[in-house]
Amino acid sequence: MIRTGFTGAGLDRADQLRLDEAALAELADREGAALLRLEGHDPVIDGDGALVWDALAALEAEAERIFLGLTEERPLFAPVPRVELGRSAWGIFPILSLMSPRDAAIWGAARSLIEWHNRHLFCGRCGAPTLLYRAGWGRHCTGCGLDHFPRVDPVVIMLAEHEGRVLVGRQPQYPPRRYSALAGFLEPGESIEEAVARELKEEAGVEVTGVRYVASQPWPFPGQLMIACIGTAASSEIVLDFNELQDAIWVDRAGVAAALAGASDAPFAAPPPFAIARTLLQAWVDAGVDGAADGLAPPPGAA
Amino acid sequence: MIRTGFTGAGLDRADQLRLDEAALAELADREGAALLRLEGHDPVIDGDGALVWDALAALEAEAERIFLGLTEERPLFAPVPRVELGRSAWGIFPILSLMSPRDAAIWGAARSLIEWHNRHLFCGRCGAPTLLYRAGWGRHCTGCGLDHFPRVDPVVIMLAEHEGRVLVGRQPQYPPRRYSALAGFLEPGESIEEAVARELKEEAGVEVTGVRYVASQPWPFPGQLMIACIGTAASSEIVLDFNELQDAIWVDRAGVAAALAGASDAPFAAPPPFAIARTLLQAWVDAGVDGAADGLAPPPGAA
Repeated sequence: MIRTGFTGAGLDRADQLRLDEAALAELADREGAALLRLEGHDPVIDGDGALVWDALAALEAEAERIFLGLTEERPLFAPVPRVELGRSAWGIFPILSLMSPRDAAIWGAARSLIEWHNRHLFCGRCGAPTLLYRAGWGRHCTGCGLDHFPRVDPVVIMLAEHEGRVLVGRQPQYPPRRYSALAGFLEPGESIEEAVARELKEEAGVEVTGVRYVASQPWPFPGQLMIACIGTAASSEIVLDFNELQDAIWVDRAGVAAALAGASDAPFAAPPPFAIARTLLQAWVDAGVDGAADGLAPPPGAA
Repeated sequence: MIRTGFTGAGLDRADQLRLDEAALAELADREGAALLRLEGHDPVIDGDGALVWDALAALEAEAERIFLGLTEERPLFAPVPRVELGRSAWGIFPILSLMSPRDAAIWGAARSLIEWHNRHLFCGRCGAPTLLYRAGWGRHCTGCGLDHFPRVDPVVIMLAEHEGRVLVGRQPQYPPRRYSALAGFLEPGESIEEAVARELKEEAGVEVTGVRYVASQPWPFPGQLMIACIGTAASSEIVLDFNELQDAIWVDRAGVAAALAGASDAPFAAPPPFAIARTLLQAWVDAGVDGAADGLAPPPGAA
């Protein structure tokens, strides 16, 4: 399978222990039980780029905490600090670039949960305060009793493909020369394939005749599931929605390969590591190099 | 692409109009503007199985409403009644079986949004009341000003495959003889592929060496995105989690085909139409009939 960012935490999440108070207490008392050190919800790393862990005793006994899971050696926990909501990903990339994929995945899961807790301190149905339960994988309303569970927002991110070229777009706030795959939140009542078609139509006026899934990854800013696809475009005509995009261009395989290699004469600057847009562009280039008919196989049962 | 349940609404959701109060007022005043008739959040159908629509004037002017989108003929709206949360899907299947896929998709989107509104009447950050905005595709907090957006919960649903057989499981509350694909909510910090592997391990003790995406669909009970996959199992050994499953069995292509055909001597009774588990089983059978090497193609870049 394709290796994507913020995956590979390798923890046993031990779902069956989350409601077992006795087992959780035993884990917390265990020698080596570790607490993720954070600044707000940002990671703290040592000189080798590794996450810093404290003894669990560093957290006040009554403070909210999340049981992240078990490594072979020890149970891992995270605190639930009160944090500023909605901070963007950009500031954290210099630190992320020093971290292992595994540490990035562990921290990413914690970050998503911490922001979710901060957004669900009160019950959406009745307005009463909620309390953490299920070892941090839920909150329970003290008023009406409704249970709330962590939220993951599916986002489709996609290339349109037409006659050996793919469509990449540029948002005004991107760094200079940066282009990336188009993306948008999947809405209630849509399949992945329908969301891909709607977003390409909305943002670039591009109609697709087929959609292929490529890969997925979590994106902890604050809690998306990125679902990367390629849509086959009916034509190369572009009708930009300037509320969403500043520009969009079609690029051939040589151009995408040059962008991924960081060539100064590449037609655009590629997205950073950890971003699935980069993985998607690489997969498209690799499939072409492999010489498959259209690069990527259609899904089973495709018309 | 594979046709799945609750898709094919065929509406222009017209996202660009959702914050345009003047345009929305014009749509509401338009001849033919239609309001979905509901009983609670259940559909109301006529003698032909078609959704019943009322004139938009049937709704009090100040009542909350959702702009669902545009057909070629008319703008469609839905009310936001106060409803019981968490009702199961089973009771609605007899009505659904009479409805067109398009009507089921339109109603499904409305049902998901209605239940989401009922779960977000108060702000999770500060506890103050929220008000509908973005034409029903958001709520705005009257206290701290936080915006809330409709929630979609990704769920992985999958077959494990081993030497020409697939794994199906049975929950205690299923109808007699019913078996289906295993499924579970994707959690923060996971890719689709990781969630598939975790759920198969948790529920059936089955380890997978690869995961292939097959299809997706919305599931409006209350608002899931079902992501159907097939995982290649390392062995056929099963270690059941009896908190999740009553039984799990391996079935070959002939057995799955018999179940889909409703044969009385089939090894199990298949899931109903509209459920992606049925689509997934059908896709697996069809891929085998097509004579492809292992039935389904690996994803691009697969190791």
